[in-house]
Amino acid sequence: MYTYQHIQEEAYEANMQLPKLGLVLFTFGNVSAADRSLGVFAIKPSGVPYKDLSPDKMVIVDFDGKTVQGEYRPSSDTQTHAVLYKHWEKINGIVHTHSTFATAWAQSQRDIPILGTTHADHNTVDIPCAPPMSDEMIKGNYEYETGFQIMNCFKEKGLDYKEVEMVLVGNHAPFTWGKNAAKAVYNSAVLESVSQMAFLTGQINPAAPRLKDALIKKHFERKHGPDSYYGQS
Amino acid sequence: MYTYQHIQEEAYEANMQLPKLGLVLFTFGNVSAADRSLGVFAIKPSGVPYKDLSPDKMVIVDFDGKTVQGEYRPSSDTQTHAVLYKHWEKINGIVHTHSTFATAWAQSQRDIPILGTTHADHNTVDIPCAPPMSDEMIKGNYEYETGFQIMNCFKEKGLDYKEVEMVLVGNHAPFTWGKNAAKAVYNSAVLESVSQMAFLTGQINPAAPRLKDALIKKHFERKHGPDSYYGQS
Amino acid sequence: MYTYQHIQEEAYEANMQLPKLGLVLFTFGNVSAADRSLGVFAIKPSGVPYKDLSPDKMVIVDFDGKTVQGEYRPSSDTQTHAVLYKHWEKINGIVHTHSTFATAWAQSQRDIPILGTTHADHNTVDIPCAPPMSDEMIKGNYEYETGFQIMNCFKEKGLDYKEVEMVLVGNHAPFTWGKNAAKAVYNSAVLESVSQMAFLTGQINPAAPRLKDALIKKHFERKHGPDSYYGQS
Amino acid sequence: MYTYQHIQEEAYEANMQLPKLGLVLFTFGNVSAADRSLGVFAIKPSGVPYKDLSPDKMVIVDFDGKTVQGEYRPSSDTQTHAVLYKHWEKINGIVHTHSTFATAWAQSQRDIPILGTTHADHNTVDIPCAPPMSDEMIKGNYEYETGFQIMNCFKEKGLDYKEVEMVLVGNHAPFTWGKNAAKAVYNSAVLESVSQMAFLTGQINPAAPRLKDALIKKHFERKHGPDSYYGQS
Repeated sequence: MYTYQHIQEEAYEANMQLPKLGLVLFTFGNVSAADRSLGVFAIKPSGVPYKDLSPDKMVIVDFDGKTVQGEYRPSSDTQTHAVLYKHWEKINGIVHTHSTFATAWAQSQRDIPILGTTHADHNTVDIPCAPPMSDEMIKGNYEYETGFQIMNCFKEKGLDYKEVEMVLVGNHAPFTWGKNAAKAVYNSAVLESVSQMAFLTGQINPAAPRLKDALIKKHFERKHGPDSYYGQS
Repeated sequence: MYTYQHIQEEAYEANMQLPKLGLVLFTFGNVSAADRSLGVFAIKPSGVPYKDLSPDKMVIVDFDGKTVQGEYRPSSDTQTHAVLYKHWEKINGIVHTHSTFATAWAQSQRDIPILGTTHADHNTVDIPCAPPMSDEMIKGNYEYETGFQIMNCFKEKGLDYKEVEMVLVGNHAPFTWGKNAAKAVYNSAVLESVSQMAFLTGQINPAAPRLKDALIKKHFERKHGPDSYYGQS
Repeated sequence: MYTYQHIQEEAYEANMQLPKLGLVLFTFGNVSAADRSLGVFAIKPSGVPYKDLSPDKMVIVDFDGKTVQGEYRPSSDTQTHAVLYKHWEKINGIVHTHSTFATAWAQSQRDIPILGTTHADHNTVDIPCAPPMSDEMIKGNYEYETGFQIMNCFKEKGLDYKEVEMVLVGNHAPFTWGKNAAKAVYNSAVLESVSQMAFLTGQINPAAPRLKDALIKKHFERKHGPDSYYGQS
Repeated sequence: MYTYQHIQEEAYEANMQLPKLGLVLFTFGNVSAADRSLGVFAIKPSGVPYKDLSPDKMVIVDFDGKTVQGEYRPSSDTQTHAVLYKHWEKINGIVHTHSTFATAWAQSQRDIPILGTTHADHNTVDIPCAPPMSDEMIKGNYEYETGFQIMNCFKEKGLDYKEVEMVLVGNHAPFTWGKNAAKAVYNSAVLESVSQMAFLTGQINPAAPRLKDALIKKHFERKHGPDSYYGQS
C-alpha cells in the first residue's frame, strides 16, 4: 500500500502547480510521475477538480497503460503517458495541458519558430507541431496512438526527446516531459511563455528572422552544455 | 417562504463564481437556477454588486417572466431566461455574461470555428452567433425577443440545445445553459477560453483549418457519448 | 480643518479603487472629488504611491486650480480637473488613468467605434478621441489647455458631457467623469473593458459593422432613459 | 562581513519586486545594486528561486566581474552588469528580465516608437533595440560583450544613458538601469507597460504617427527638466 507513496506525492505536488501557474482551466490538464524501478507511474484521476485532489487519489498505472492500483479512473490521456514512458526511457515526468497560447499554436498547426534567447535557453530548434493523426489512428486506440504520433514526429524531424522536452499535437494541445514531474511542469510553463512571445513577435514584425545559429548554440550551452554556467550545480 | 431556498442557494453560489472565474466586470452578468416541479427559477437581482448578494436576495420568477417572490427587481435579462426555460425543457441553469473574448466574437458577428479539441470536448459544431434582431423585435419586448432570437438561430442551423449549450447573440454577448446552474457557469468559462484560443489561432494562422471530422467525433464521444470515458461517472 | 473631510475621504476611496481594478501602474492615475457648495475639489497628491495615501493627504484645490489646503503638491493633472469642474457644472468626480487598452486607442488617435451593447449600455456614440493639441497650447499652460481640448472636442462633435462621460486625449490617455468620484472610477473601468473588446473585435473582423441604431437606443434606455429598468432605483 | 549588507539588502528587495510586478517567470531575471565607494555590486545568485532568496545570498562582485564574496555563483548575466557599471559611472542599479512584451519587441528587432505620453514621461526617444551581436562576439566572452553591444548601440544612436535608462538587446530581452536598484526595477515595469501599449497601438492603427515633438518635450520636462513639477521633490 505504501509502495507508491513517493510517486503519488510527486504527481500530486506537480498537478497542484498547474492551476498556480495559470496553465489549466478546471481539470484540463494532468501530470504523471514515474518510478522506473517499479515500472509504473502515478497520474491524476480523470475529471477530479484540483481542490479535491490528494496524493492517495493518484492512480498507479504500468507502462502498458494498465491500472495497477487506485479507486479512481485515471486521466483520459493515460495511454499517451504510458506509450511515452515505455519508449522514452529517460523521462520520469509528463505533463499535458490546454494552456492558452501553446494550444493556439497547436490549433494553428505551426511549429513555434525559435526567435529569441528565452526559447534558446531551453532548446535549439523550432518547437515541433505534430500533424493531426490519420482518421484510422483516431478511430483506433486514440490516446495510445497520440503517443506514437508524437514519437513519429520526433523521428521524422530527427529530434532527440532528451534535448527537446516539449511538443504540440496539431489541433489538440501541448505535451511536455522531463527527468521528473517538476521539470515537466517547468517545461509546460516555459512553453506557454515562449508561445506567447512568439505570437507577439509575429504580430509586431511578421518578418522577424529566426535566431542566429551562434546565439542558439551559446544560450543552450549556457544552461545545458558540458561547460554550462547557469544555476548552482 | 422556504419553498425556494434550494434554487436561491444554487443561483447564489453560481453567481458568485462569475467574478472568481474572471467572467464579469461589476454586475455585467447573471445566473439563474430553475426548479421544474415548481415551475420557477431564481435569478440575480438587477444591478446589485456581487459582494452585496445573498441567497435570500435572489428573485423568484415563473417561466412567463412574472416575479413570484422577491423584494428586488430581477435582472434586466430575466425575460430571456424565462423564454429559454419555457421552451427548452431540459435546462435548469442559464448564464449571461459580457466576458471579454466571447463578447468580441459576438461583436464580430462571427461563429466561433471549431479549431481544436478544447472546443470539441464540449460540442461538435462552430459555436453559433445569432444575427442581431430586426428593428421591430428590438422595439418590442426586447429581452423576451432575445430568447426567440436564440431559439430561431438554433432552429435555422439545425442545432440541438442539449448538445450545444452556448450561443453568441450578435453585437451583444454570450448566453450559456445546462442541466443546472453550475454546469451553465462551467460552460461560460469554457466558452471564454475557446473564444480566446480561436482568436489567437486566427492571428497566428488565418488559414488554420477546421478540426477534422474524425477528431471532432472522437473528442466529443470521450466526454459525452454512450462509451464516454472522461471523468468518474 | 474638518470642512473638507468628506471629499478627502471620497477622493481617497476612489483613488484606492484604481489599482484594485487594474487601471494603474505605480502612480499613473488620479481621482478627484468635488463639493460644489464649497467650490473646491480634493485630489491625489502628485507622485505619492497608493500604499502611502491617506484621506488627509488629499489636496484641496479650487475651480481656478489654486491650492486651498494641503501639505503636498497636487497631481500634475490638477489644472485639467479644475477646468472641467469650472465649465461642466454637473460633474463631481473626475478620473485620469493610463489604462492599457484605452491608452492604446488614444495613441492610435482613433475614436472607439460603438460595436456592441456593452458600449451602448453606457453611451450612444463612438467614444471620442480629442486630437493632439496645437504646439502653442502645449507650450502654454499645458494641463489647463488639456481641459479646453477636451471641451472643444465635445463642442465640435456636438456631444453632451452629461451623456458621454469619457474621452480619449490623442497621444495621451483617457479621462472620465461622473456625478461623483465613484461613478467616474466606474466609467474608467467600463472604458478599459470596452476598449479591449473593440480592439479584439477589430482583430477578429476588421469589417465588423457599428451597432444598429435600434440596439443603441434600446440598450441606453434600459439603463438611462425615463423608462429605465436596470438596477434597483 | 557586514560591509556589503546595505547593497545586499537593496538588491534583495529589488529582486523580490520582479515577481510581484509580473516581470519574471521562475528565475528569468536579475537585479543588482552597486556601491561606488566600495567599487562593487550585489547581484542575485544564478538560478535560485525567488522564494529561496535572502539578502545574505546576494553575491558581491567587482566592476571587472570578479566575485568578491558569496557562497553562490552569481547570475549568468553578471559580466553584462559589470561592464555597464564600469563604463556608466552614474548608475547604481541594473535589471535584466525576459518580460513578455518587451522581449517580443526585442525578438522583433524593432525600436519601440514613441507613440504617447506614457513613453514621453520617461524618455524622449524611441527605445533602442541593439542589433544581435556578431558571431565573433557571441563566441567570445558573451555576457561581457553584451555590455559593449549595449554601449555601442547608445554611442551610434547618440543616446545618453542618464536620459534613456532602458534598452532592448535584439533577439534577447531588455536591460534597464537607474540611480539605484529600485529605480531600475521601476524602469523595467514602465518599459513593459510601454511595450504593451505600443504593440496594441500598432494593431489598432498601423499608421499611428510618432508623438509630436512639442508633446515629447513637454511631458519629459514635467517629470525631468529643471522646471519639473511632477512628484513631491
